[in-house]
Formats: sequence, structure tokens, C-alpha cells
Amino acid sequence: MGGDAAPAAIVAGLDIAAERHPSARLLLVGDEAALTPLLARYKRAAAICTIRHTAEVIGSDMKPTAALRMRTASMRLAIDAVANGEAAGVVSAGNTGALLALAKIVIKTLPGIDRPAMAAIGPSARGDVVMLDLGANVSCDTRNLVEFALLGDVFARTVLGLTAPTIGLLNVGSEELKGNDQLRQTADALRASHLGPQFHGFIEGHDIAAGTTDVIVTDGFTGNVALKTAEGTLKLMSGMLRQVFATSILTKIGYLLARPGLERLREWLDPQRYNGAVMLGLAGVVVKSHGGTDANGFAHAVDVGMDMVVHRFNDGIRDGLERLRTAQGQPQTVASPGVPE
Amino acid sequence: MGGDAAPAAIVAGLDIAAERHPSARLLLVGDEAALTPLLARYKRAAAICTIRHTAEVIGSDMKPTAALRMRTASMRLAIDAVANGEAAGVVSAGNTGALLALAKIVIKTLPGIDRPAMAAIGPSARGDVVMLDLGANVSCDTRNLVEFALLGDVFARTVLGLTAPTIGLLNVGSEELKGNDQLRQTADALRASHLGPQFHGFIEGHDIAAGTTDVIVTDGFTGNVALKTAEGTLKLMSGMLRQVFATSILTKIGYLLARPGLERLREWLDPQRYNGAVMLGLAGVVVKSHGGTDANGFAHAVDVGMDMVVHRFNDGIRDGLERLRTAQGQPQTVASPGVPE
Repeated sequence: MGGDAAPAAIVAGLDIAAERHPSARLLLVGDEAALTPLLARYKRAAAICTIRHTAEVIGSDMKPTAALRMRTASMRLAIDAVANGEAAGVVSAGNTGALLALAKIVIKTLPGIDRPAMAAIGPSARGDVVMLDLGANVSCDTRNLVEFALLGDVFARTVLGLTAPTIGLLNVGSEELKGNDQLRQTADALRASHLGPQFHGFIEGHDIAAGTTDVIVTDGFTGNVALKTAEGTLKLMSGMLRQVFATSILTKIGYLLARPGLERLREWLDPQRYNGAVMLGLAGVVVKSHGGTDANGFAHAVDVGMDMVVHRFNDGIRDGLERLRTAQGQPQTVASPGVPE
Repeated sequence: MGGDAAPAAIVAGLDIAAERHPSARLLLVGDEAALTPLLARYKRAAAICTIRHTAEVIGSDMKPTAALRMRTASMRLAIDAVANGEAAGVVSAGNTGALLALAKIVIKTLPGIDRPAMAAIGPSARGDVVMLDLGANVSCDTRNLVEFALLGDVFARTVLGLTAPTIGLLNVGSEELKGNDQLRQTADALRASHLGPQFHGFIEGHDIAAGTTDVIVTDGFTGNVALKTAEGTLKLMSGMLRQVFATSILTKIGYLLARPGLERLREWLDPQRYNGAVMLGLAGVVVKSHGGTDANGFAHAVDVGMDMVVHRFNDGIRDGLERLRTAQGQPQTVASPGVPE
């Protein structure tokens, strides 16, 4: 029920997803009166969906604290289904803050992970790249950043299909770098870990679009600013290009001649193609679709979730945590309290 | 003597600058044997320049600690001239780390300013904007950020000619914001200060290119990453556009038809047009030209320095500090130790 065009765009997106994942079984949580007629129109979606009715919806502007009290909201019931093992993952186009908070509290982090991170895939000059954290954690310590590197590594293997993704740690130019011990410690820890051979070292802001590494690791404040700065810059330049081509008859003809390439460029940078940020490090798959998504974008978010489930993302994380633990020679420090060894 | 094409591009740039600032007097510090023949070729530059000879040059890869020991390097002598009042400011295309370190130690900060900041002007959808800090301070406290807002305000008035520049504090989306007390305290302090009417509040990464505010205030780590992310994104998109137009005869004709607009776009985003980062908060004007600049870019860096000198940038800062001090009702806390009241 979440998102600007819900539930119509959601069900239309599931219809596209159903063609790609015919063996998937989806629990569609929301208002039956709205969902039933939609499923009647989208036959492929209907074949893989079961409706779980609830009338309660978490509003897009609702604060996480208020959202947490809505025990029968559609987002909550979907997250409950993951927490109790009924579903392997949840995909939502609803309130991001509420989804983050509910996922952390109800689904909980994987044993051994201190804090989950928000990750997303984006375009670069050398192919798709993964960046995290994008805003789940405003401040992070060395342990968090090392775990983000692991989460990014397994995500790039699982969803981008890479066999040995390179990993970069976002930093500022070496000449200005004074006293950021935390980043240096993180770099040392990564070099000493099983991720060492894939660790490229420090990268800078321009390396994101250049695709210098497949995975970009940073704290949630820097990652959020970098992501939105890149999006804003692309939007500015797209707007200016539109103006350039709209100037005169000649430029309009110029546009028509270059159109196939310009359309490819537009598609290549299309946010819908990259729709589906993920919350990594939880005991279940959580995908956040953009609220303004269309059916294609939502189907892409479902793809991301399906990849993570089918390719057993969390098994990869458990394995990686075990290897980090062995490298550190400190089996106790990484495990969460109360987890049986 | 600093920069990839020095000293030829520097002297050629001074020739352009001399036309715009015929009453300026420039001290050209470097190797006389290299500079004299260049000045013989550039008559306008020769008319406003005096050579101060030194053979020692700080290398582009030299560490600041090593640079500090070179007492007769060209950059050092230029900075000494500012420190002893012989010159009002220095413009250099040399080693950034060395320039920062030398400027801080030799020229020193203005009384009342805790730490200087690196600032630059860039393009946005709503005109030129100023961002700071761009990397001089990896971590900043509330006082630093408030002072950066003041430095940015006076810089935007002095160099962009704005009468009441709007000021934004870079942050992440409100829904993810948890516990960044420092930014909230900075916002409160700015609202309570004489900058209150110009303070727009928090902005996000996409607001930089949108031009939501004239001045963007952030710490040096975030600012450096944001700037380089934006530059990298522009470069990526420019590269892809070139590919689009190079595909076939038709797209090449398309390019020719749209060329005037595309050239305007290229010029508008041209880094040379924005060349000249500044170190604000020092007891003298310090402009850092990009090392890879051409003559036009260096002339622009000189323009920035001249604007700051002619429009008495530091008088504006002294006045602003006095007003901040009055607003806080704590005359002692802002003054540096040892400064007579």
C-alpha cells in the first residue's frame, strides 16, 4: 500500500515480476477491496499472489516512532511475515524511515552484525557499482565499516554476479587527510581479512562514477550526501541538455538525429533501472523501492529481492562473518550477546 | 612555479589578468631565468609584474612537512610576502597540501577564527553557488561550521556580488537523521545569529546542483566527497554524450546542429571558469588554482583574489565576527588567546 501510485503500480509491477519469477509465491499485504480488482486485471500477478487483508496503512510522512505502534499496518504485517519465517523477504515502496525502524526492531540484525546498512546499485563508467551505507547509520565505527565491506562484497556477488568484486573505502585526497584514524584502521582491518585481495584501498568522490571499484564503502552520512549529490548533478545536466535541444528547429532536428543514442543514455541512467535499495545485515531480505516508482521500477525491486533469496545472500554473510572472526582470532568479540557459539 | 604547465601558463594567465586589473601590482616569485623571457613575450603582464628570484620549488608530490622546511621555495616567499604585509594575497597553482600548511602556519588565521576553510564556486541550476569546507578540516565542530557560514556569506557577497546570500547546512534526509546533535546545534546558532534571516536550514546533496541556497556549509570530509562526486558525475555524463554523438554520420550531423547549445553547456560547466579555490579565514587572501589550469583558468583565479582584496573580504569577516560575538553575548569566547580586546 506504500508509494505514490500504490497499489496500482505495485500490482502492475508484480505482473512483470511474475513473468520472470513464475515459481515465486508472493504475499500481498493490504486492502483487499483495492487489491482484488487489481489482481483480476493482472492475471500473471494473480497466479503468484495471495492477499492478506488489512485496512491500516503507514502514511508517507509518519514518524518511525508512530509507525512502530501500528501493529496491523500493511508494512508491519509484511515485516512480521519475514520475522516469523513465513516469507523470505519483503519489498516495500512505503515510508523509508518506518521500514528501517520496523525491520531493525522486528526482523533484527543477523547474529554477528552490529548494524545493518542501506545499499543500492548505480551506474558508472565501468559498469554497475554498489554503494553502502546510504543513510541507515549517520556515524559508524571501524567494525561497522568492515562489516559494510563484507555486506557489499556478498551483495555484489549475489545481485551483480561478480566473482571477486573490488572494494574501495571512500576518503578525501591524501594531501588533506589528517587524523582520520578510523578510516586507516578500517583499511588495515580489511587488508588483514579474507577481503584483502579484493580491497583496492582508499578512493575519492570522483571514483564513484568512474567505477574504480565495484563496491564503495562509507558511513551513512557521507554515502547519503554522495548519492544525492550525484543524482542532483545528473538531473541538472539532463535539464540543461533538454534546454539545448529545445532551442531552435535546428537543435530539434539535431536531437532527432542523435535520439537513439540519447535514449540509450537516458535508459542507462534511468532511476527505475536501479530501483530497489536494500537493507543488508538483517535476518531476512528487505528491499526498499522508491516511493515514486512505476511498475517497471517495482518489478526491478522484486528482482533484487529474489536474487538475494535465491542466491542465499544471508548464507554468504554468515560464511563471511565466520572468516572475519577467524582472521581476527577473536571469536567472542564479533558474536552478538546471547548467541550460542 | 607550481602547476603542470608552469611557469608558461601562469605568465600567460597574468597577461589576461593584467588587462582586467591594470592597476594591480604583482610579485612574480620564481626562477628569473625562466620568467624573464616569458615576461618579454607578455607585455601586459610585464607592465604589472616584478620578479623575485628563487630557484627552489616545492614539488607537486612533496609532503607538507617537507615543504615547510624549504624556506626559500617560491611558494614560501610568496606566502612570506603576504605575512609581512608586502602583498595582500597570494595565488598559486602549486602543491595544495603545502599551500594549506604554509598559509596556516605563516599567514595565520584571522583573530576570532578557529580554523580556515577551503571554498570554491560552482555551477547550479539557479546560478553560481559557494561550497565550504572542501577538505581543509576533516572533522569540524559547531563553532567551525558557524564560522564557515560567515566566511561563505562574506565570500558570496564579495565575489558573487550577492546582497543577502542564502545559506544551507548540508545534512541527510530528515527520516534518517538520528543523533547528529552537532548539525542541530549549528542550525540553532545560525538562526540566533545575524545570519538568521539568510539561513535556509538543512539541505541535502541534491540541493547543491539545484542551487537551493547560494552558500553550502559542511565539514571538509563531506564537502570534499560531494565536490568530487559531482565532478566525477559530470565527467561520466560528458564522456557518454561524446560517445552518443560519435556513433554514426547521423549523430555527428545531430551534434553539429546542436553544437552552439552544447558548446554553451560545455563552457557553462567548464572547470576553468570556476578555477580558484580559496582558503578563507586567514589574515590574507590565499587562492589555490588547479594545477592543471590553462592561462584562462589562472586569470580567473587571479580575478577571485583581486575581488577579495578590492572588496575587502577580511574587513567583512571582522565585522561579521563582531556581530556573532555580540549575538552570543560572550565576547571572550570567540577571540583567540593573546589577541588584545
